[in-house]
Amino acid sequence: MDREKALSIVKEQLTERRYIHTIGVMETAVALAKRYGEDEKKAEIAAIFHDYAKFRPKEEMKQIIIEQKMPSNLLIHNDELWHAPVGAYLVEKEVGITDVSILMAIRYHTSGRMDMSQLEKIIYIADYIEPNRNFPGVEEVRELAFKQLDETLIKILQNTITFLMKKNQAIYPETIDTYNFFVMAENSKK
Amino acid sequence: MDREKALSIVKEQLTERRYIHTIGVMETAVALAKRYGEDEKKAEIAAIFHDYAKFRPKEEMKQIIIEQKMPSNLLIHNDELWHAPVGAYLVEKEVGITDVSILMAIRYHTSGRMDMSQLEKIIYIADYIEPNRNFPGVEEVRELAFKQLDETLIKILQNTITFLMKKNQAIYPETIDTYNFFVMAENSKK
Repeated sequence: MDREKALSIVKEQLTERRYIHTIGVMETAVALAKRYGEDEKKAEIAAIFHDYAKFRPKEEMKQIIIEQKMPSNLLIHNDELWHAPVGAYLVEKEVGITDVSILMAIRYHTSGRMDMSQLEKIIYIADYIEPNRNFPGVEEVRELAFKQLDETLIKILQNTITFLMKKNQAIYPETIDTYNFFVMAENSKK
Repeated sequence: MDREKALSIVKEQLTERRYIHTIGVMETAVALAKRYGEDEKKAEIAAIFHDYAKFRPKEEMKQIIIEQKMPSNLLIHNDELWHAPVGAYLVEKEVGITDVSILMAIRYHTSGRMDMSQLEKIIYIADYIEPNRNFPGVEEVRELAFKQLDETLIKILQNTITFLMKKNQAIYPETIDTYNFFVMAENSKK
């Protein structure tokens, strides 16, 4: 699917603000793909569709999580997590994208997962650092992203966990599994 | 078992510094037990023996974790976690303490667990705030401890997770389960 077609499909699903964010993620993901020798076209499509389900009604998302037997602990955790796995499902069903590596990148762009593929890392990181993101420490992560993917991932996960704890919110277990996986891998190199 | 007898048993197992820490935990645990109407004698004995296995050889602890079928993920996580479950096992086997509530308080004094008993909370918190502990923020936790146990627990868990992340260390999943359990319980009250 070409970029213009993909963008026109996703534009209908998003607010103006979220569409601008999506463009930012797309440009960042393609730049990271270029930097790390990843498939640029896949990065582009995964980025364009990563938030496809963001504005679906909570009830519809809940239904899909139950019917598609997605991890049931999603339902007791923050509903901000739901649009990622539900998005992967809907992008396949409604848009007809069948490339598993793209669907996985959409599915895990919020929680992360152990042993993420390079494409999954790129989408996860691009979502966090795209140019419209503006919070303390983002510049540091932006620089690191073009140097070392795994260290960037660890930094983002640490920031995310810290952010959730400051708001006295629960931390999704898969996010901790992802953090532990990459920290242990980095530490085993030392 | 009376206090003097218990202290004389544990003194042989510990360094001088750790013995002084143990006295601090004992006094704090008894004070917290008094404050919250918990069994003071149980708090005293659990506190005295909480670090019983602290200086056992790593190999012996590893052997016990395997033979006693303790959670195998202990072995891939920080060995600082081992002395708690191993201690509960040895305190029963070598000292002859059979009170399950005391053994549980020893077992979970490092990781915590979901739905901890009040005695378990008291030992976990006393270990963190006893008078010899001296690090930024400990005063705040000390004050909170005599006001509200669950909020204190959440604060300690947040501090512990932050501390581990600053050192780029993995976080034991049971610690996150504990944090999530108490945060969700607090949030559901609001």
